[in-house]
Amino acid sequence: MKPVSELRLDLVSNDWVVIATGRAKRPETFKEHKREKESVPPEECPFCNPNIIKQGVRYRINNPDGSWRVLVVDNKYPAFAKDGTPKIKKNGVNRTIDGIGFHEIIITQDHIKQLALFSNEQVKEVIDAYQSRYLSLMKYKFIKYIAIFHNHGKEAGASVAHPHSQLIAIPVIDPDLKWSIEGAARYFKRTKKCVYCTMIEQDKKDGRVIYENEKFLVLSPFAPIVSFETRVYPKEHKPYFEKMTEEEKTLFADALRVALCKLYKGLDDPAYNFYIHTSPCDDGDYSHYHWHLNILPKTATWAGFELGTGIEISTIQPEKAAEFLRKQ
Amino acid sequence: MKPVSELRLDLVSNDWVVIATGRAKRPETFKEHKREKESVPPEECPFCNPNIIKQGVRYRINNPDGSWRVLVVDNKYPAFAKDGTPKIKKNGVNRTIDGIGFHEIIITQDHIKQLALFSNEQVKEVIDAYQSRYLSLMKYKFIKYIAIFHNHGKEAGASVAHPHSQLIAIPVIDPDLKWSIEGAARYFKRTKKCVYCTMIEQDKKDGRVIYENEKFLVLSPFAPIVSFETRVYPKEHKPYFEKMTEEEKTLFADALRVALCKLYKGLDDPAYNFYIHTSPCDDGDYSHYHWHLNILPKTATWAGFELGTGIEISTIQPEKAAEFLRKQ
Repeated sequence: MKPVSELRLDLVSNDWVVIATGRAKRPETFKEHKREKESVPPEECPFCNPNIIKQGVRYRINNPDGSWRVLVVDNKYPAFAKDGTPKIKKNGVNRTIDGIGFHEIIITQDHIKQLALFSNEQVKEVIDAYQSRYLSLMKYKFIKYIAIFHNHGKEAGASVAHPHSQLIAIPVIDPDLKWSIEGAARYFKRTKKCVYCTMIEQDKKDGRVIYENEKFLVLSPFAPIVSFETRVYPKEHKPYFEKMTEEEKTLFADALRVALCKLYKGLDDPAYNFYIHTSPCDDGDYSHYHWHLNILPKTATWAGFELGTGIEISTIQPEKAAEFLRKQ
Repeated sequence: MKPVSELRLDLVSNDWVVIATGRAKRPETFKEHKREKESVPPEECPFCNPNIIKQGVRYRINNPDGSWRVLVVDNKYPAFAKDGTPKIKKNGVNRTIDGIGFHEIIITQDHIKQLALFSNEQVKEVIDAYQSRYLSLMKYKFIKYIAIFHNHGKEAGASVAHPHSQLIAIPVIDPDLKWSIEGAARYFKRTKKCVYCTMIEQDKKDGRVIYENEKFLVLSPFAPIVSFETRVYPKEHKPYFEKMTEEEKTLFADALRVALCKLYKGLDDPAYNFYIHTSPCDDGDYSHYHWHLNILPKTATWAGFELGTGIEISTIQPEKAAEFLRKQ
């Protein structure tokens, strides 16, 4: 009898994931996860409200008429803000730090139009905003990591439907993230090679590449944490997202747009999260890291097994997911 | 200005979580997360169908008339099953293992009645089933960890509404879990104390205890990964769930029932996951571990920030959650 599933090891983190081949689904069936369409009219949208610029404009790209088409402002309900001290405080045996940092939102003008349906030029302007804010905020001594992410759809945790990304600059690096970043260093120490460059070579051989341009690759990872996880990697070994050149940003925008558009078509406009994994901005040596962007379509709910064991289950093989997305 | 949030360090895992005090909510407002009621009639329920016993009965507790009231059967769509080999296979630079193991479901008779509304005796019978199956499956040499969990509500990933738990016995231990288990050993090495016993002492001082009986404590952890996370701990230092005595199981059933019932009342029947964290069943030394049960009400969706950084955000202080739940 064939096994009902396969455990796959992530080469960077050593985390296990399950590919449930026994209950594998056809790619088309994942369309059932399409997101619920929301219907807040622009008049009630906080991001369409002209008062949005009172939240503190950090960056803007203007239209010829002076209105903004890309805007970065402080989050009205920040999870992190400038007040407080970066000192660790004792609380009996426990430890805390004030949540000092920055929490900004990156908004594009159209109330409905999502990144997947943007032009390359429009996506590039969003990337420009990410990079510009990253470069400004990394200068603060107490900032150790800058998270840039995008939540699309209520099912993926977006509380405002108007398309927007977020940037949260924080004073700590979580061990989960550190473990992955150090995984790249451990692999280099052992093999003298970048673990991501090595994985990408294998992804090419195994048919997990979905799209490529001159400088970027879009692929289905060998050990995905959700069905249809999709990643965008620079082809060359690059540790720092924020050091992208104009040419690189243009090609990254193309790769990201194509990835999102293929998911949009293939899964019928799913909810998703994406986030950038790049080197921390403390003073560590991250020359072994290889930055990338992860897209996690909301194809399942992590339940007791995933939460209790740390092992995620996918119901489609990444090789089949890649084959399906290549055709979209 | 007061900081908008507080980062708290988990003493076992060293993971950070955020308590967003600035956008904290009143406990009552979490009722908005009440689960969607489902309406599959018993005639269409796979667990009410008499054919369920054809899936291979592993355990049953009978009513006087010979019908079952607690039943353990093989999962019809298992994520792990007995076929395959526990050998690691090479796939280029990558590694896989066949998904060998066991996947069983623990069903209680009533199509609707959930654990939170059971009597202590009824919960005890479910615990008996968990323990009995655990003891049987841990004998298999290739099984390294046995996950016991319960998903309640569609929002928490339950695909069948009829109340049921699951047991999945697997051939690997994920680094995420290993990291926490080893965290207890690291703490012991440093301090000669159990990290959980130490945390519990602090929880008592800080007012995070929700309920206690002679042998078990129900509390809101200092560093929760979701709002209203609730844990059940044996008061004495015990590494192994499966070694509970009859008396302990009776008191554990009481603590678990009270915890679920308080969440049911306080959050108006939320969806939730619970899982048992106990020592692995490989041949390691786990004398420093302290088993417990985690309940995660579905009070939020982990989005780009949590997924990208590994840092979870709660919008209520655990001290306030405990105070609120004590009153239910």
